[in-house]
Order: sequence, then C-alpha cells, then structure tokens
Amino acid sequence: MDFRFNDVQESMAKVVRNFANKVLLPQYGYWDQKEEFPYEQWAKMAELDLLGLRVSERYGGQEADCVTAGLIAEEIARGDFNCAYGVLMTCLVGDIIERFATEKIKNNWLSKMAKGEKIICIALTEPQAGCDAAALNARAVKKEDSYVLNGEKSAISLLRASDAAVVFAKTDPAAGARGISAFLVPLDLPGITLQSYPDMGSKAIVRGSLFLDDIVIPEENLIGQEGGGFIQVMQAFDYSRVIIALMCLGAAQITIEETVEYVKQRSVFGKPLAKFEGISFPLVEWLTRLEAARWLCYRALWLRDQELPHTKEAAMCKWLCPELAVAAIHECLLIHGHYGYTREFPIEQRMRDVIGLQIGDGTAQVQKIIISREVFGREFLPY
Amino acid sequence: MDFRFNDVQESMAKVVRNFANKVLLPQYGYWDQKEEFPYEQWAKMAELDLLGLRVSERYGGQEADCVTAGLIAEEIARGDFNCAYGVLMTCLVGDIIERFATEKIKNNWLSKMAKGEKIICIALTEPQAGCDAAALNARAVKKEDSYVLNGEKSAISLLRASDAAVVFAKTDPAAGARGISAFLVPLDLPGITLQSYPDMGSKAIVRGSLFLDDIVIPEENLIGQEGGGFIQVMQAFDYSRVIIALMCLGAAQITIEETVEYVKQRSVFGKPLAKFEGISFPLVEWLTRLEAARWLCYRALWLRDQELPHTKEAAMCKWLCPELAVAAIHECLLIHGHYGYTREFPIEQRMRDVIGLQIGDGTAQVQKIIISREVFGREFLPY
Amino acid sequence: MDFRFNDVQESMAKVVRNFANKVLLPQYGYWDQKEEFPYEQWAKMAELDLLGLRVSERYGGQEADCVTAGLIAEEIARGDFNCAYGVLMTCLVGDIIERFATEKIKNNWLSKMAKGEKIICIALTEPQAGCDAAALNARAVKKEDSYVLNGEKSAISLLRASDAAVVFAKTDPAAGARGISAFLVPLDLPGITLQSYPDMGSKAIVRGSLFLDDIVIPEENLIGQEGGGFIQVMQAFDYSRVIIALMCLGAAQITIEETVEYVKQRSVFGKPLAKFEGISFPLVEWLTRLEAARWLCYRALWLRDQELPHTKEAAMCKWLCPELAVAAIHECLLIHGHYGYTREFPIEQRMRDVIGLQIGDGTAQVQKIIISREVFGREFLPY
Amino acid sequence: MDFRFNDVQESMAKVVRNFANKVLLPQYGYWDQKEEFPYEQWAKMAELDLLGLRVSERYGGQEADCVTAGLIAEEIARGDFNCAYGVLMTCLVGDIIERFATEKIKNNWLSKMAKGEKIICIALTEPQAGCDAAALNARAVKKEDSYVLNGEKSAISLLRASDAAVVFAKTDPAAGARGISAFLVPLDLPGITLQSYPDMGSKAIVRGSLFLDDIVIPEENLIGQEGGGFIQVMQAFDYSRVIIALMCLGAAQITIEETVEYVKQRSVFGKPLAKFEGISFPLVEWLTRLEAARWLCYRALWLRDQELPHTKEAAMCKWLCPELAVAAIHECLLIHGHYGYTREFPIEQRMRDVIGLQIGDGTAQVQKIIISREVFGREFLPY
Repeated sequence: MDFRFNDVQESMAKVVRNFANKVLLPQYGYWDQKEEFPYEQWAKMAELDLLGLRVSERYGGQEADCVTAGLIAEEIARGDFNCAYGVLMTCLVGDIIERFATEKIKNNWLSKMAKGEKIICIALTEPQAGCDAAALNARAVKKEDSYVLNGEKSAISLLRASDAAVVFAKTDPAAGARGISAFLVPLDLPGITLQSYPDMGSKAIVRGSLFLDDIVIPEENLIGQEGGGFIQVMQAFDYSRVIIALMCLGAAQITIEETVEYVKQRSVFGKPLAKFEGISFPLVEWLTRLEAARWLCYRALWLRDQELPHTKEAAMCKWLCPELAVAAIHECLLIHGHYGYTREFPIEQRMRDVIGLQIGDGTAQVQKIIISREVFGREFLPY
Repeated sequence: MDFRFNDVQESMAKVVRNFANKVLLPQYGYWDQKEEFPYEQWAKMAELDLLGLRVSERYGGQEADCVTAGLIAEEIARGDFNCAYGVLMTCLVGDIIERFATEKIKNNWLSKMAKGEKIICIALTEPQAGCDAAALNARAVKKEDSYVLNGEKSAISLLRASDAAVVFAKTDPAAGARGISAFLVPLDLPGITLQSYPDMGSKAIVRGSLFLDDIVIPEENLIGQEGGGFIQVMQAFDYSRVIIALMCLGAAQITIEETVEYVKQRSVFGKPLAKFEGISFPLVEWLTRLEAARWLCYRALWLRDQELPHTKEAAMCKWLCPELAVAAIHECLLIHGHYGYTREFPIEQRMRDVIGLQIGDGTAQVQKIIISREVFGREFLPY
Repeated sequence: MDFRFNDVQESMAKVVRNFANKVLLPQYGYWDQKEEFPYEQWAKMAELDLLGLRVSERYGGQEADCVTAGLIAEEIARGDFNCAYGVLMTCLVGDIIERFATEKIKNNWLSKMAKGEKIICIALTEPQAGCDAAALNARAVKKEDSYVLNGEKSAISLLRASDAAVVFAKTDPAAGARGISAFLVPLDLPGITLQSYPDMGSKAIVRGSLFLDDIVIPEENLIGQEGGGFIQVMQAFDYSRVIIALMCLGAAQITIEETVEYVKQRSVFGKPLAKFEGISFPLVEWLTRLEAARWLCYRALWLRDQELPHTKEAAMCKWLCPELAVAAIHECLLIHGHYGYTREFPIEQRMRDVIGLQIGDGTAQVQKIIISREVFGREFLPY
Repeated sequence: MDFRFNDVQESMAKVVRNFANKVLLPQYGYWDQKEEFPYEQWAKMAELDLLGLRVSERYGGQEADCVTAGLIAEEIARGDFNCAYGVLMTCLVGDIIERFATEKIKNNWLSKMAKGEKIICIALTEPQAGCDAAALNARAVKKEDSYVLNGEKSAISLLRASDAAVVFAKTDPAAGARGISAFLVPLDLPGITLQSYPDMGSKAIVRGSLFLDDIVIPEENLIGQEGGGFIQVMQAFDYSRVIIALMCLGAAQITIEETVEYVKQRSVFGKPLAKFEGISFPLVEWLTRLEAARWLCYRALWLRDQELPHTKEAAMCKWLCPELAVAAIHECLLIHGHYGYTREFPIEQRMRDVIGLQIGDGTAQVQKIIISREVFGREFLPY
C-alpha cells in the first residue's frame, strides 16, 4: 500500500500548480465576464503538453497514466475550472478516439488535439434523452461508403470552440442501446447548425446544441464497430467522471485555502474571524470531507490504471465530489460576507462553474442508479 | 389559536399572486440580463399600493400590519425576487423614518416613497464592519444647525436606484454602539460618490458603496435622537429579517411548484420523473421544511404585530429560511438537469438572487450569536 | 391569525408541566430499567383527567380539542416519553371507538379507558405487512351473531399492559383495503397469546405480537361498518401522527434546555462550554428547527379542529419531527461527553425511546409517499 | 501509488472475517444482554494472535504494521464491536508501554497482554477534565523509590476486566500538561476502588471510574520520563483515533450489507423494498461515504507506518467516521422498520455501541480544534 504520488507526478503537479497560480488564476474571471473561449490559456496548456496527457506518444501525447491525468485536472481546476475541460477532453474524447477510431482519424485529429490545434467535443445527450441512451433519436444511415446523419444533440460542453464532435447516433434504431454508433463529425460541414446556451456558469466553455441536417461523412469516420457506441461512451464515462470529481475538488480546495487566509486577516468584535468556531469548524469539516473524497477518486483512477473494475467507484466519485465541492464553496462564499457575493473574489464564479458539472456526465440520481445496479443487482432497478 | 389569514389578507394575496404571475415573472430574467433597475415594475407595484404597505395613511400608506406585509413580500418574490426589495424597503426604511424622523422628512420623503416616487436605501455596513456596529468609522459632526458627514458605507442594496439613504454614522465615537446616529441623506448632494458592485445576483437591484466627503445636511435630517441609531436599526432588523425570510421562502416555493410540474411531464426510462422516489422524495422533503419555516416566520410577524418580543424569533427566521431556500432551489435546478443550468428557466437566477440575502441583514453566524445571547445570556457570548 | 394558546390551554399546560417535572421526570429512568409498565404514573395521569382528553363528556372525558391534546402530549413527553403514550391512546383509540363503536362498547370500554381503568391498544400491523394495509392476512369470519378471528398482529405498542385491542382483520379478503374491518377484542379471551419484544427503547411500554387463534367475539364488537376499518384507521393516523410528532419535539426540547444549563456550568480550557460556538451554535440551530417544526404541528392540529383536510400536513409532521428530535437529542448526548452516554442523565433513554416513534405509525418513507400522493397525484406513485 | 493490501494483510483479513462471522457475530448480543465481559471471545482472539498485533516479537507480539492493525480492527468490529477493543488496547496501551516502559514492566505486562492473559486499560480522563489535560487533578508524589498516587480517573473503557491501568497523574502540578506522568498501576493494590457505569452501550466492555487512595507503586512503574506522559498519550491517540474510526466503519459496513440483503427479500406493495429509490438511494449514499472515509483512515495509518506527521489526519478520521457510522446504522435500523428496533437484529446494539466511540478518545469538537490548530495556527485557537 502506498499513498505517495511518484516523483514524476509530484514534479508535474508542482509545475502545473505554479502555472495555475501565476497564469490561470489571475485571468479566471476575465473569460467568464467576456464569455469568450480562453484560447490563449489553451495554447499555454498545450505548450505544457497538458492537452494530450492520455494520448499515446505516437500521436504526440504523453501517455500519462490515469492517476497523473487526475492530478493535473485537479491542479488546473485550482487556477481555472473551465481550462480543466482541456484535461477532461484528452481523457474522454482522447480515450474514445485512440481506442476505437481508424488510423486516419487518429492521425488527422488526435495528434492535433494533443497539440492544442483542434478541439473536439462529445455529442451524446439529446433534448428528450439525458441519461437514457436507448431513447436517442439521432440517426445515421449508411449510404455506399458514407453515413448520413440527422438529429439534434444537446448539452454539449466546449461546443462553440470545437472543430469536431464525436457524435452518437443510432445506426440500428430497433436495437436500443446496442444500436448506437459513434462518428467523428467535423463541425464545418454544410448542414450543421450550432446554438449556444445562456448558462449560469462555465461561460468561457460555451455549452450548446448541435443540429445535424443530412450531414454526410465518410465511413472511415465511424469510430469502432457499428452498434458499439454505447459501450465506448460508458467506459469513457467511468474515466471522465473521476476527472470531473477531481476538478470539483480542486476548485473547492483552493477556495477553502483562500478562505482560511481571509478569516485569519479579517476581524470582527476585535478578534480575527478564525478564532470563532462558528467560522473555523465548518472550514475544517469541509477540509476533512474533501480529503476523504480525494482518496476515493485516486483509488478509482488507480483501479482504472490496473484495469480493474471501477464503474461503481467512478459513479461514487461523480455524485459525491461535485456535491461536496459546491457546498464547500457556498460556505466559503458566505464566510466572505458581502465580498463573497461579488466578482472581486473568484468564489461566486467557482460556485456557478462547478454546478455545471453536478449535471454534466450524469446527475447524482444517474450515478446512484449505477451504484445500485452493482450493489443490489440489475433486477432491483426501479424501471 | 388561528392559522387563517383574514379576508383582507387573503384577497390582497390573491391579487398580488396574479400580478406576480402575469406581470413580474415573465420579466424577471429581463432585468437581470440588462442589469437595469426595474422602474416599470416598481411603478406597477406603486399602483397596487405595495410600496407604502407599512406607512401610515397620513403619509399615503396602507397601514398594513406586519403579517400582511410578510404575505405580500412572499407573493411578490414568487414573481420577481428583486422587486420584493420594494416591500422590504417599506418595512425597513419606512419603519425607521415613520417612527423616528422629523415631520418634515416624513412629508418630503415617506409619502413619496409610498407612492413609488422616491427610493430610499439603508447605509449601515462599512468595509471593516459588517455586523459589528460598534466598529463603524463614518462620522457625523454637528456644525451649527447642520451635520457634516464623512465616511464610506458599503454593501448597500438598492443603492444605484435610490434618491436618498438612511446613513448611520457616529456622532459620539467614544460611545461605541450608543454613539451611532441615523441621518436622511439625499444622494444628489455634492461630495457623494457611488460605486456599484459586480454581484453574482440581484443584478437589477444594484448593490454598492457610498462615499461621503464632507456632506452637509440640515439637522432636521437627523432621524431620532443623537446616539439612538443603533437601537433603531436593530429594531428595524427584527422586522426586515422576517420579511427577507419570507421573500426567500416565496422564491423557493414557486421553484418547487414549477419543478413538480416539470417532473410530471419529463420522462426517463419510459416513466415520468415524478415516479422515481429519488426525484419525488427530495421535493416533498423541501416542501415540508419550507412549510414549517413559513409558520416560524408568520409567528414572528404576529409577535411584532402584538408588540411582543421577537428578536430571537426574527434571527431564527433569518438564518434558517434563506439557507433552506437556496438548498431547495439548488435541488430543483439539478432536477431540471441541463435545462436548470440555463437562463431559459428562472431557477438559476433565483439561486443567485437568494444567496444575496443569505448575507444581507446579517449572515447566519450573526443570527446565531443573537439567538445565543437570549438562550445562554450575554455573558456567554464568545467575544 | 393568532398564535396564542387560549387561557384554558395555557393553564392546563402549566399544571401538566409541573406534574411532568415533579412526578414523571424523576421516575422516567426507573421504568426503563425495570422494564415495567408505569401503572402508578398512569393512575396519576388519570387523576389529572389526561387519559380521556379527547373522549366526550358523556363517557367521562374532557372533550378537549386537538390542539389541547397536542399541547398535553408535548408536556407529558418532557417528563416521561412513554407516559405520553397515554395521550396518544386517548387520541388514536379514543377517536376510533367514539366515532364508530356501538354504544355498548363505548359504555364498557371508552369510559373506563378515560378513567385509567382500562388500557386499549391498536393491532394493525402484521409481520409481512407494515404500511401496506391491503396485504393484511388476519381474517374475521361472521358466524351467526359472532365473529371468529384468526391471525397474527405485530408491533403493537402498549400490548403487554392492555386489556383490549382494536384489531384490524379482513372480513372480505377479495376487497383489498376496502375489506378490512375493526373489532374490539378483549385480551383475556381464550385463544389469545401475547409475545413481548426485546426493544431498544420504550421498555416501559412493551411492544409485542398478538396471536389470535379462533377467537370468538360478539358482533357488537365490530367497530363501524364491515369494510370500513381502513378508512377509520387512516383518519385516526392523521391525528396520532401529529401527536407523535409533538411528543418527540417535547422530548427534544427539554433535552436541549437541560444541555443549555449543562454547558453554562461545565468548563474546559478555563471557559464555560457555552462560550464555544462549536457548542452553542448546534444548540441554537436545533432550537430553531424544533421551533419551526412545532408550529407545523399545531397548524395541523388546528386544521383537524376546523375539520379541514390535513392528511398531507400530518404526514409532514410525522417524518420531520421524530427525525429532528432524534438528531437533536443525539447532539445533546454528545455535548454531555462521557456523562451523556450513561443512565445518570435521561438523554440516552430519550434517544432510544424516540427512535421507536420514528418507526411507529409509519416510517419516513411511508409519510413521503402520502405527501407525494397529494403533491403529484396518485398516478405518480412508484407502485 | 498502490491501494492494494499486501498478501499477508489480505490473508489475515480473510481469516479474521471468517472468525468474526462464525464466532463473534452470533454471540455479539449475548454479552450485551448479560453485561458480561466476553472472556471466551478474548481468549479466541488471543489464539489468533490478535491481542499483541503491534507488540514486538520479543514480547510475544506480531510486530504488525499500523495498516494491518487497522484492517484487523475493522474486521473484528464487523463481528463484535466490543471485542475490537482488544485490538484498540494492543495499539494504544501496547504502543505506550512498548515505547516508554521499563524492561521489567514490559516483561511482566506486555507479553501477558499479548497472550490475552492480562488486560490493561488507560486512565486519563477525570470528572472535571475531559479533553483538557492541563486541568488534571490526580497526583503522583515521589517517596524514596516509590510513587504515591491519589485521585479519581473516569470514563475508563475496559476498566472492570482490567488487571492494570496506565494512569496519568501530575508529578509537577505547576507545569501544566508538561507535568503529567504515566504509571503502570496494578488494579489489585490496596486503596483502589472501581465504579462501573450504567452505559447506553458497550455493556460488555464496562466503563467506569478508578479511585486511587494513597496507592504506592515502585518507581520502575513510571512509564517514560517524569513529565512525559502528555506527549506519550497524544502520540498514542494519533494512532488509536484511526483504529476507532475503522472499528466504526466496520460496524457500519456490515450493517449496510445486512440491510442490502434485507431489502432484497422484504416486499411492500408487491415489490421488493430494494426497488424503491427511497430505500436504495440512502443505502448507496452511505456506501459511498463509508468508502471515502475508509481510504482517509488507511492513508492516516500508512502515514504513521512511514513515520510521517498524521495528527491532523487522525483527528479527521476520528470525528468523521464515527459520525458517519452512527448515521448509517441509524438509517439501516429505520429501514428494517419494526424489526430494526429489536434485539432480534444486531443493528440497535451497534448503534448504541458505536455512539460510545463518538465520545471516547475525544469528541468531534476536540478533533476539530486539533485540525484547526494545524490549519490556522495555534494562535487562532478560541481559548
């Protein structure tokens, strides 16, 4: 048993924390207010080789293990929660493309994603089908050596800035979840329309809907087998859910650290706030819960690195950590009093941003259903 | 014992609920996005005589009792949380001016406030003194028949739209809380500067700081006795804290009602969301807690109407209700999934707006200190 | 609107609080340790006319309204939680018998119950049917002018001390919940066996199972119409659930009051515990929640007194109040440190006793299903 | 990074789980009802070499690392929470004696403790000094080559069954915490009186008070340096607090596993309870929180094995885990409905037993003060 990060991990984390503090954090609010994608920061992350963390070396990536990617996601999120979507992308999209796409797609897209030249998003959800993949309506019909895609995909993170999307559509509508296939769809094709959402947070990472109207893509853009899309994305979610959890923990952790400093400085009734247990106790309670949750996450990533089952563990991370993170940040916001409610501190933005990932990649209810399936058995699911 | 609102209250509530649904709610998001004060809505509230609810008839008000004012605040907040600051103003500012100001001030200001012609805010807090009134630094010095005011007041709700402020400043710096006096200060005087805050929410009701640089006001603008300001504001807070609590409950209650409808319509795995206890149970739990909290509030207002002590009760309302309301709204936001995170539904705005009143008029910690003072005795306070 | 108890209620409450403090509280632990029914205390409650509170005067009762009965239940529970089952009995059993039983039963049993001469329990639950009345297996078969009863009833409070039970059994097994009838069954009949439970708490009020083996009772012992039993007990539960809620609040309230005194006396690090917010804040938080919950209860009882619908409200009281009470008492136990864990203080017993009524008359889940039925509509129930 | 227990740990855990299931669990309730010390089980634990886990081989122990001891404590607690005090003893008492006592004491006592022939308890707390060691009143006065001890020690676990106690008393009353020394005191000396407590739980492991009236012990019974007692016990607490945390988690974990089986068997409204999310969701939430808390504990033990600082981490485990465990067990109790409230299931006993260790070795407040000291710095402590 060993709870130590190895030397490479430690030194990478140190570099990235420094980068997060000096480069990302001071600009974190800027992109939110401008509602612009942080291309500059993205480029700097690419320079540090953070956008291809999980991509293999032959496609220009770092071939980092899952634990390392989690550590980097956590550190980036301390500086700029939205920039950490870059790490999420390399884990989620990168994982799917590398494992299942054709060589041509990998050469064209994966290596450019790893260099920060291309951004690729995941288009799974639809307006009437959040977590229920079998209910997807988007269709892909084979025509000679092409596929024709139609449908509406929604709630796509990174959409506005993306060059392509991994789109999930039904090739065999009668086959339920087993009839879903994945396609690499460049977003500059004719027939594609994008619509951005006016979101509460993550305004730099514009979410939106993707409308596909008779889009034609070559068959080499099929990712994996026909009908294999659902399993691909489920396996990738087992990974991205833990990365999301660590992003949320990172955002919460730095908020508490800032608050600890704040309450040591700020006085009331002639004493620093830190001397009142009504202030200090909630802070140490959150530190405790975040610490416990953090080891839950690293264990899940370690299981993935060992190729051991971790679906239940990932679902545990995904419901627990964002919930803890939002609550901890909310507490810190309130402890800052009137200041916490303004953009002068990064706290209110973190709260808005993190709430987005309480929902993204599956709500708490979805995760609890996944855990229940393993704990009680599929026959005890409530549907 | 009688838990019924009387006929007048019932019929007013009905009219106001209709107004809130038809007039306020459809525009609630508009002012938030524009970050503009809702003058149009304010005027319509004035037409319905809602801005002088607590003002006596001789100054053009309705002389409503406290319970009625609470009921109206709750109903208005269901439509537009920020417009309910109008009711809060008539309770907080109206109360202080009516009970303590000179006849001239009342004739000039109170009657115009009741008609919606003037907006008046409260300027109590300072950057280094949130809840600790004795630590105020703003100074008022008597010079012949005038007072000269200097200082910085912060975290003032309604500031940008206000025509005047009730400013609290020390006339006797050596006397601690007993050296604080209140003044009616028109905001168009030379030497006054305003600064708006970039807040997380309540963007229609811009909060901000007020800088007073050798402001000269006539002595008739002193409200009450010299040194009486602290008691005035504390007594007014015993009222406004309950109004705030009911505003928060109103915002939470309508959010849950909207969510109940949503989960009856929206299906997953072939069943309406409402059929899953993971959805329905949290909603009925919040309905229960809000219902209990609501009677706590009306009892506190009834105590005030009876002129019975209610400082502890008001503090109980102020910490419990905003906390419950934010948590309930947060739960509803998540239950709406991806939709809840956008401005397409009013939920995310309500969450941002209500958080502002978790802080305003005293954080939870301040309220718990007030309750502790009564429960344990002043000698057991931790400072 | 009026939150005042009337003069009669106030004076009764005062008398009963004095009785609870002087007579019940000092002996509260005695009956728990002895695991004996507190006949002596029961007799003293009868002397104070507390056991027939809800019974009409013609059967020797007080004809008190529901609010008064709630107030007395709360006060008695402050002294001895288990003795408050006497008030619960007069509300639950008394209500059913008075409204539905034959004159002969009322004369024989109700008047004696009101005088404390007879104890009557409710036998509804069965081993395989907790909250699901339609699943009851006990049978009652009409034979000439008698009924023959068979079956096993379980989880019956007060069983060991009871002279009779109101037994629910199916007269028409094919009719589901509409085939259930109620019978007054004396417990000294041949063919009756009792079995006591080794419970965590409420050891003075022994719970147990009742086995009915070809019991013959005259038809006059049928309470109400054949097939009317389910509606009778559901209506009675709308009442008893609020009484239970108030019993729990009474037990929690006195525990907090005792703890407030304790932390003012007990010092650590040279300061009274009460000066640490880590101690005082939880206590004022619980006081706040209990206060809110209390008005929820009295409103529900007032609704019943007005003959207004209150099924949802009663279910709200039943899940919320016992949960709050156990948690508040648990917190107080821990604040007492090593002392709280012993029988030297009544706290640990209150925790054990109150947990019994988190379950009795329906778990939290059952209550939430009842509330859901009203909020969402019967068609959205999960079964 | 490695989250695997090694082969030795895995195989020991397997043996002990089997032992716990087959030998301990079936008798768990027996000792509670009898209120007798489980000497038979203790002997069987000794046979399995579990009582000297941390003792070095030269004194007949296993020299197991801290992680292994934690694993064993968790497994034993699944079978019989009170028997796990045996593991706690070898960690807490064993640690102090082995590191600081004279060779003679080790030969006489440590090796016998490891064999299960002697039981030794810790006598630190006093009636007026729970967590505030500087306030201890017990005195030890050097007289030639002996010490004379006087005082009252309270809240001593295992007292009734113990052959000796490690007693903390002041040798230099003017020196505060630095004037405390530790002594090995055989409990059969003249002048010693014991008093047992009537506790809510842990009735097999009788707690009690120890009265020392002019007890004379040889100077070789001094453990470590004069004045070194406080540091010794604080360092030992950094260990025992994590062992306690794991005991609590073990008791909660098996309770949830039993409840998972129960809700798969038990039906209501024609469906197994497990199919209702109102049942399944709380269970998977608790499984998640317990899983996170467990890794917090093993990391703390791993830090100790590495001789890295872990005071804060141990305090985190001590407040979080018992709190989670009691709440999880309470939830399971309620899910069992009427059955959960009886001794027929082990749940209610586990709840009573675990509450004892929410208090023992320091309440949650004490732990939060310890964490605060590290997080904010000693100068921000509230005393």
